[in-house]
Amino acid sequence: MQAGKMRAVSTEQGLCRAPSPESPRPCCSPPLQSWLPISLFSTPISEAPAPGGSELDREKWREEDKTERGREGQTPADLTVLSLPALALKGIDYDTAPVNLIKDGGQQFSDEFQALNPMKQVPALKIDGMTIGQSLAIIEYLEETRPTPRLLPQDPKKRALVRMISDLIAGGIQPLQNLSVLRQVEEQQRLAWAQKAISSGFNALEAILRGTAGKYCVGDEVTMADLCLVPQVANADRFKVDVSPYPIISRINRSLLALDAFQVSHPGRQPDTPPEMRA
Amino acid sequence: MQAGKMRAVSTEQGLCRAPSPESPRPCCSPPLQSWLPISLFSTPISEAPAPGGSELDREKWREEDKTERGREGQTPADLTVLSLPALALKGIDYDTAPVNLIKDGGQQFSDEFQALNPMKQVPALKIDGMTIGQSLAIIEYLEETRPTPRLLPQDPKKRALVRMISDLIAGGIQPLQNLSVLRQVEEQQRLAWAQKAISSGFNALEAILRGTAGKYCVGDEVTMADLCLVPQVANADRFKVDVSPYPIISRINRSLLALDAFQVSHPGRQPDTPPEMRA
Repeated sequence: MQAGKMRAVSTEQGLCRAPSPESPRPCCSPPLQSWLPISLFSTPISEAPAPGGSELDREKWREEDKTERGREGQTPADLTVLSLPALALKGIDYDTAPVNLIKDGGQQFSDEFQALNPMKQVPALKIDGMTIGQSLAIIEYLEETRPTPRLLPQDPKKRALVRMISDLIAGGIQPLQNLSVLRQVEEQQRLAWAQKAISSGFNALEAILRGTAGKYCVGDEVTMADLCLVPQVANADRFKVDVSPYPIISRINRSLLALDAFQVSHPGRQPDTPPEMRA
Repeated sequence: MQAGKMRAVSTEQGLCRAPSPESPRPCCSPPLQSWLPISLFSTPISEAPAPGGSELDREKWREEDKTERGREGQTPADLTVLSLPALALKGIDYDTAPVNLIKDGGQQFSDEFQALNPMKQVPALKIDGMTIGQSLAIIEYLEETRPTPRLLPQDPKKRALVRMISDLIAGGIQPLQNLSVLRQVEEQQRLAWAQKAISSGFNALEAILRGTAGKYCVGDEVTMADLCLVPQVANADRFKVDVSPYPIISRINRSLLALDAFQVSHPGRQPDTPPEMRA
């Protein structure tokens, strides 16, 4: 497994360098520093396995997450895990830097992170001297600069289907049930709001997949559409959406979760995933 | 002007063939029929000029739109106009078929339209024997199959910036203030909800454009990002968002509106745009 060497960890002061042999405790200067040329800034629950990370630190995040989850009925992970299997599938080595959407009033609002990504959103990928925000833009860039293995088919028509499904999930379902939107909804309405967004989107998605799916969303190769599907089904589980009307979505999700790249990146299978959230 | 020969028009029975010399009144069989090989299904207010269309019919739509707008403080056009300048810029000849999101309980929910596009959303482009939904997927397909003139730069880094901006608007702003979402918000909260979604997104967008903009969003060539910008600024106007904090967004929008392709597709400059909505 080449992906997911987490080297940057968080402290109460912000986002800091990882512990190293020379400096076993996290230090806080400079912020958002990474050690590998490619860094993925994402939420803690979506981090890849972190053999070098601080268990104590992760424990702190976990406790905060639990509290917040108890209060809001959801986690901050959302669709940010989408970029992780892309990096894993392409065998790209990278650092991850956690950005907690709740802690410190939301670390995505810090001056350091805003300088890196004005969208104040995760994930953001620092790569080739630039920072790219938005999950699908990240994957398209990886595809154009690291084309093997493909995450988009060669045939333009199939590419269109992959992008249509990806946009449906990343632009049509996910934004309606993410943390910042749900916070604007009355607390007692949040679960119903998220469930409606997901089931309405899944109704459309299931109908589309009837015409496009093979083993995966479009044919028998893993594509960008599949990268979108897995975290969205995880969100459906989290919001207790009945997925029995969506047999194709469920079948594809199961096939994908059997793959190594999704094992390391599924939000329910992270080292910091609390027991009640494990998939 | 090659784009925008509207041939299919609506009647109270649904979506029908356009009037023709042989059949001067709209006829209703078969539904969703188009005459050119490429058909764009979109909302009436986003239709391109329609020299062959029925003025009477447009008048009916306009009246309904006015009523609904008066009640809900917004129109059904939203970001669906995004695909029109893409077709215009590339000189692609096409039919348009109006799909009214309000009339008949929402024509996007009709069996005919669902068979065409299970997402029940506009725009949908019928092209090369397939139907593509989602605006950005449509533009990416046009770009790959009709590459001249380019709507994505050649340089992968600039392409990433274009896609990042496009995803920010089409996936990060637009979905939060479209008709189906606003209908779930308390009526007295809708304006504030939409304004927050737009101004929050524009804060990020303005910061990004500081680093990417030339004459347009990314450098001096019109790209997919610009196609997203214009309808979103039109929505900002509609929802009375103060755009004075966004001088770059405003300047680029003005430059774009001076171009023919945007003249024909701007929702405020359509033959069926009511006087109070004209841009």
